[in-house]
Amino acid sequence: MDQRISLVTLGVDDLARARAFYAALGWRGQEVEETVFVQAGPMALVLWDRGKLAADTGIPDRGSGFDGVVLAQNVRSGAEVDEIVAAAAQAGATVTRAPSPTFYGGYAGVFLDPDGHAWEVAFNPGFTLDDDGALVLPEF
Amino acid sequence: MDQRISLVTLGVDDLARARAFYAALGWRGQEVEETVFVQAGPMALVLWDRGKLAADTGIPDRGSGFDGVVLAQNVRSGAEVDEIVAAAAQAGATVTRAPSPTFYGGYAGVFLDPDGHAWEVAFNPGFTLDDDGALVLPEF
Repeated sequence: MDQRISLVTLGVDDLARARAFYAALGWRGQEVEETVFVQAGPMALVLWDRGKLAADTGIPDRGSGFDGVVLAQNVRSGAEVDEIVAAAAQAGATVTRAPSPTFYGGYAGVFLDPDGHAWEVAFNPGFTLDDDGALVLPEF
Repeated sequence: MDQRISLVTLGVDDLARARAFYAALGWRGQEVEETVFVQAGPMALVLWDRGKLAADTGIPDRGSGFDGVVLAQNVRSGAEVDEIVAAAAQAGATVTRAPSPTFYGGYAGVFLDPDGHAWEVAFNPGFTLDDDGALVLPEF
């Protein structure tokens, strides 16, 4: 199995609401057959009905709540963290961790999208971001 | 907010077990401070204690179960789907959808990793994969 992720699919209760939320943050996608596909570098973020996603994957659903999965976007400054978390809150997100210093010497905030999926927005001075935003892990 | 994901962090109950599972599938990472970081193209997959992840993000945990999130890896043939799902089962995954034809004319299987996180392995003839495995969405 290669070390790569092609798609991250988020199960949503209201596709229009989810699409509007991500659009408010600047994510532009295509909707086809009640599914929204958003290109994100060499992969795609997908929004799809949560019940259909559970049925399609054969996994019993238990309703929304903590995923045990957190998506993160690393940015280049603490100010950028503040801006994005504020924009998400404005768009209807629930902020679960107000932007604040992290144990690793960075600065991060966390919000839940309208379906409860967690996003961390982080500035980590130890992680390099290329010009195109690609994250390169250091040799620890 | 840019259209990109820097990290996908999976909360795990047993880091050594999770690391061994992904290693059995060929994912090589670095462990630092009880966290495993695996480079995956321009992003990273991270394995971290589920309780610490919940506490760090300010989200109440409800224990494992359906995430409402499915990670997918697209591959180039149905045979490759069969191989990867078989290898995952061998490594201790629970197969929730045996590899089978999909409604979109492809072929896919789904398994849960030892912490219940869902992975779909899919061959989708409508999605192009570059030589380096990057997924390019079609114009629908």
